[in-house]
Amino acid sequence: MDSVKIRVVIPVSTDKWNDSVKADYERVKEPKTVIDVIHLQHGPEAIQSEYDEANAAHHVLKEVAKILPQDYDAIIIYCFSDPALSGAREISTIPVLGIGESSQLFAMGLGDRCGIITTIEQSVARIRRKLRARGISGRFPTIRPLNIPVLEYDQREKVMESALGVARIMVEQDGVEALILGCGSLFGIQERIGDELGIPVVEPGIVTLKHAEMLVGLGLTHSKRSYMIPLPVKEN
Amino acid sequence: MDSVKIRVVIPVSTDKWNDSVKADYERVKEPKTVIDVIHLQHGPEAIQSEYDEANAAHHVLKEVAKILPQDYDAIIIYCFSDPALSGAREISTIPVLGIGESSQLFAMGLGDRCGIITTIEQSVARIRRKLRARGISGRFPTIRPLNIPVLEYDQREKVMESALGVARIMVEQDGVEALILGCGSLFGIQERIGDELGIPVVEPGIVTLKHAEMLVGLGLTHSKRSYMIPLPVKEN
Amino acid sequence: MDSVKIRVVIPVSTDKWNDSVKADYERVKEPKTVIDVIHLQHGPEAIQSEYDEANAAHHVLKEVAKILPQDYDAIIIYCFSDPALSGAREISTIPVLGIGESSQLFAMGLGDRCGIITTIEQSVARIRRKLRARGISGRFPTIRPLNIPVLEYDQREKVMESALGVARIMVEQDGVEALILGCGSLFGIQERIGDELGIPVVEPGIVTLKHAEMLVGLGLTHSKRSYMIPLPVKEN
Amino acid sequence: MDSVKIRVVIPVSTDKWNDSVKADYERVKEPKTVIDVIHLQHGPEAIQSEYDEANAAHHVLKEVAKILPQDYDAIIIYCFSDPALSGAREISTIPVLGIGESSQLFAMGLGDRCGIITTIEQSVARIRRKLRARGISGRFPTIRPLNIPVLEYDQREKVMESALGVARIMVEQDGVEALILGCGSLFGIQERIGDELGIPVVEPGIVTLKHAEMLVGLGLTHSKRSYMIPLPVKEN
Amino acid sequence: MDSVKIRVVIPVSTDKWNDSVKADYERVKEPKTVIDVIHLQHGPEAIQSEYDEANAAHHVLKEVAKILPQDYDAIIIYCFSDPALSGAREISTIPVLGIGESSQLFAMGLGDRCGIITTIEQSVARIRRKLRARGISGRFPTIRPLNIPVLEYDQREKVMESALGVARIMVEQDGVEALILGCGSLFGIQERIGDELGIPVVEPGIVTLKHAEMLVGLGLTHSKRSYMIPLPVKEN
Amino acid sequence: MDSVKIRVVIPVSTDKWNDSVKADYERVKEPKTVIDVIHLQHGPEAIQSEYDEANAAHHVLKEVAKILPQDYDAIIIYCFSDPALSGAREISTIPVLGIGESSQLFAMGLGDRCGIITTIEQSVARIRRKLRARGISGRFPTIRPLNIPVLEYDQREKVMESALGVARIMVEQDGVEALILGCGSLFGIQERIGDELGIPVVEPGIVTLKHAEMLVGLGLTHSKRSYMIPLPVKEN
Repeated sequence: MDSVKIRVVIPVSTDKWNDSVKADYERVKEPKTVIDVIHLQHGPEAIQSEYDEANAAHHVLKEVAKILPQDYDAIIIYCFSDPALSGAREISTIPVLGIGESSQLFAMGLGDRCGIITTIEQSVARIRRKLRARGISGRFPTIRPLNIPVLEYDQREKVMESALGVARIMVEQDGVEALILGCGSLFGIQERIGDELGIPVVEPGIVTLKHAEMLVGLGLTHSKRSYMIPLPVKEN
Repeated sequence: MDSVKIRVVIPVSTDKWNDSVKADYERVKEPKTVIDVIHLQHGPEAIQSEYDEANAAHHVLKEVAKILPQDYDAIIIYCFSDPALSGAREISTIPVLGIGESSQLFAMGLGDRCGIITTIEQSVARIRRKLRARGISGRFPTIRPLNIPVLEYDQREKVMESALGVARIMVEQDGVEALILGCGSLFGIQERIGDELGIPVVEPGIVTLKHAEMLVGLGLTHSKRSYMIPLPVKEN
Repeated sequence: MDSVKIRVVIPVSTDKWNDSVKADYERVKEPKTVIDVIHLQHGPEAIQSEYDEANAAHHVLKEVAKILPQDYDAIIIYCFSDPALSGAREISTIPVLGIGESSQLFAMGLGDRCGIITTIEQSVARIRRKLRARGISGRFPTIRPLNIPVLEYDQREKVMESALGVARIMVEQDGVEALILGCGSLFGIQERIGDELGIPVVEPGIVTLKHAEMLVGLGLTHSKRSYMIPLPVKEN
Repeated sequence: MDSVKIRVVIPVSTDKWNDSVKADYERVKEPKTVIDVIHLQHGPEAIQSEYDEANAAHHVLKEVAKILPQDYDAIIIYCFSDPALSGAREISTIPVLGIGESSQLFAMGLGDRCGIITTIEQSVARIRRKLRARGISGRFPTIRPLNIPVLEYDQREKVMESALGVARIMVEQDGVEALILGCGSLFGIQERIGDELGIPVVEPGIVTLKHAEMLVGLGLTHSKRSYMIPLPVKEN
Repeated sequence: MDSVKIRVVIPVSTDKWNDSVKADYERVKEPKTVIDVIHLQHGPEAIQSEYDEANAAHHVLKEVAKILPQDYDAIIIYCFSDPALSGAREISTIPVLGIGESSQLFAMGLGDRCGIITTIEQSVARIRRKLRARGISGRFPTIRPLNIPVLEYDQREKVMESALGVARIMVEQDGVEALILGCGSLFGIQERIGDELGIPVVEPGIVTLKHAEMLVGLGLTHSKRSYMIPLPVKEN
Repeated sequence: MDSVKIRVVIPVSTDKWNDSVKADYERVKEPKTVIDVIHLQHGPEAIQSEYDEANAAHHVLKEVAKILPQDYDAIIIYCFSDPALSGAREISTIPVLGIGESSQLFAMGLGDRCGIITTIEQSVARIRRKLRARGISGRFPTIRPLNIPVLEYDQREKVMESALGVARIMVEQDGVEALILGCGSLFGIQERIGDELGIPVVEPGIVTLKHAEMLVGLGLTHSKRSYMIPLPVKEN
């Protein structure tokens, strides 16, 4: 294989995150991987509710539909909510990964009791529902919010202090043994949390890139029996 | 209360079902209930995959956003897939019901082991994921498809024969004790199946209308702690 | 259908609750519903243990056996413990509802994490067992007692204050999103709790009346495969 | 300890089983154990439904209430349905065992996937509910009926042939690794089934006697926090 | 049966516990039981990790392989971690019991919500994994450590005070209804804890002896379909 | 990072597999990865039971203990049974992976209902227990054996035909959507199965190499709170 071409779809209508995701991915990708980051032209600027998820999902699918198997080897939907993940798999013959699912399965290989730090209180119930839909909620006893909206995530010091405090409560009170930073934009602060609390901290975006490279390398994609090709239907 | 106004959103871009849903609802509604059925102007004509769900969901939300609490008392999303149900609840202060969830909870009051007949093979895995997300999959040991696409559902005899055959297998082999006709459009054939097999057969659309009337009568709506109001976000 | 005749069996040997249940039901019933409330001539005056349940159950069954399908359309066993519910369903061809089961399934349609306030500490373990038998305990993370015996429930102010305090703990510490007042006699205080805490509060008695009207309207009853007709056996 | 006095309550209103239970128990009891078998004066002659269970339960409780701690060391309710087990524990300070629960926990120590042979089809759903209430249904993937009413159990050859056939299906098709003969009256045929199929076969009555002797020997009884003493209540 | 010969394998390489286990077992065994206690010649002196378990397991298997069915009737592996339990059952035709599994199943017969006190923090996650492998973790909501290494267990006063304190937290905060002293060496302090907290306290070693006597008396052993005879393989 | 050094421990006492594992790994590894394959000097030649697992485990730990963090970056235990996996993690500060766990978590990212083909009937129950211990058995509804002992796996045609037949049953009857070849030695036949049945087929060995490279690249290792460092203990 000459190169592995991965298209990253940031499912929000702002280019605010493109450069940092691109830069982070460039740093950790395999040499032969070629990363290409796009965002949505339309839809919400942030995904913080199931309402936002639904408003972004169809735009994600339009982007996925445009990605031809001859041009790309895998697709990453870069949002912990995994908007449109199942639908995208249905219409795609190359691997489609969501940073939520990929990081959750990965964390289960690191520790028994996993926890998720999310952005705001509004996200706790919807993440819980996703874990349950995957049949893995028994391994995720706790989800706690930072209570910082995602668009304020460039205030790194504030986010860092808050994340450390919440993580400490999760380790000491909830018995968390491995932690996921449940937001694509927390990138870069995992080491400090891991160092201070002595548990592995998973950064979903990075993990998912490696997951994608792995699938491509193995020549595997999601099961078309779990994500069957949709019957054609007229769209108005 | 003078009247109970319920808006039914059929989340597909065809008016093919409006009249029959309206007629069926008129027959079973409480006298003071006023039914108003709309369909989507845009989106897929049928929902038979998670791809279709996502393509319909945002159109559903647009319709839900237009429904003012002073004008309506409850909203029914008339599709067994419950597209946009959580998102709609987030933005609504009146009850929003999906015929999938409502009929599943209702069936659990009729029998221990519940089964679902769905339209096509493509729907089995996605219904299974929804049951799991609700924490009720232990009560639903089996889901089987008719293998008839939804748009051929006006061929009543064919659908009837097929449904009877599948239902019989579910009772005799899978031990089903109560059955849901997992599609809004199977309306009307439940009695024959129930009579021949001796189990209660749930027609989701009707059940959900009664569920809606019940919620309105009780002055209750979904929890805003499960479905929190989304933070405002810019939409492009 | 001319009228819907519902017999309410209050499964305790006191008429203390008949009038208030009747009055409450009259207020919320559909016009065509005819309510008829009876209590037991024999058995315990309150049900606060599995011992009490067993001592009431056979008296309930005697009453249920007397209820002829030509005279009634549905039966409500008015106690959150649902004494004799399964047995009554076995011998009945009209719907038999228990206010425990009906309200639990209904609450699951309102929120993800449901809680139950019960009367006394003695009831926590037995309610937990019932939830588990229904396969829904994953949706009910917490049950807490008021620590007020049921026969002191006419002291409304005391009950109200206590219920508010317990409910607040359940919301803030246990993360409850929808609440059931797990006792037939707490009737009427739900609004205040709901208003102060911002979550839906389910009053089991009322919900079950509407559930019964719904079943009758739909012509459905419990599955005779889940609740099979008993083989005849000699009774001494 | 001089002797261990165990009262066996056969919760049916016939003395048909007293002698054989007594004889079987005499054969396997510890020397110092004194067995005393009673049956109910009133109630159903067999328990084959939850209706029968409820009609027997209060008579069981009356018998249990008469058993003074100074006179007996343990009580066995000799029916796989465990009628009134929880209620009896609430009012008793000596161990009360049901042959259903005791044999189920015991079978889990013999094999991973346990199965139960019951008498008639009517019992399958109610046993399933009991396993679920105990949180152990994951270990009991299958329950199958002989389809022979309990009162015909003295036709040993017929019962034997039927049980062997059903057991073979459970081993070969359902993957059962340990088997419970889920009826107090199948006593004595376990060896042949075990020999022919190569799996341990649990006879609930015997196991429960040994369980009772064990509890008495250890000076332990059920938790009064799981089975709290009922508040006194007037009985009419 | 003339006598019941039980070999107790203490799976650590010290004779430190032999005499006290022997003495305790002599006190509670049935008259016809003959107890014979051995320890390992090689391997770790204590088992406080899965590393220790693995280092002890093969030595346990060597001892089990030497135990001939003509010489013994049952084998007890005397450690709450149950090292080599499954492997020992595979190669043995007489019952092999582990004090972990036996006491866990036994505790489930005493109360609904069971708790385990273990020695050190290191053991919590590995006990949790064992409960989950048995499908019973839903009945064991809490495991808490004393934080006293097993080799300091002869300081009875210190252990007693610590155990009482931890047990109190488990009852009051975690809602524990029955308690297991999850270490073979805590022997003898159960009564005081039980008395002060009003819950049954299970001493695993004793329970397992009675379990073994019970199995031998019943002529039953573990299922060879759950623990199949290993194919012969060359050992180097 | 200059190179990634991975030591593969084949936990059997034969060099029969070393070359093929090495060759396969060389083919798929990243360029900078250096693979080094060892087998055990002592212990069983194959692992087909929990007896074999226990007899191999301590030899695995001895090898793991010799692997210094300055010399290696990750360790792979190359056997689907994952012998000594938890113990090895306790004593290691570099990632230790088992091809069972890694491939199971990976398969969950490919499809909803996963199946495992194992070698012989003896392995079904022990794999089931491992899935349950990981809390993921709900996603693995079926495990089926080839009924070919592992040492006959060089008869590729026979293994291939058998595997195809078993896989077909798992897809058609058990509804499997993604399949794991649950044995390290089936290497190379996955494509044909995948092609003929249209589902992804996971080869555990390869997946685990990529998992190891991923962990090393991310600088992450298993949680020391899930796999705590053992207290020092004297070994005799």
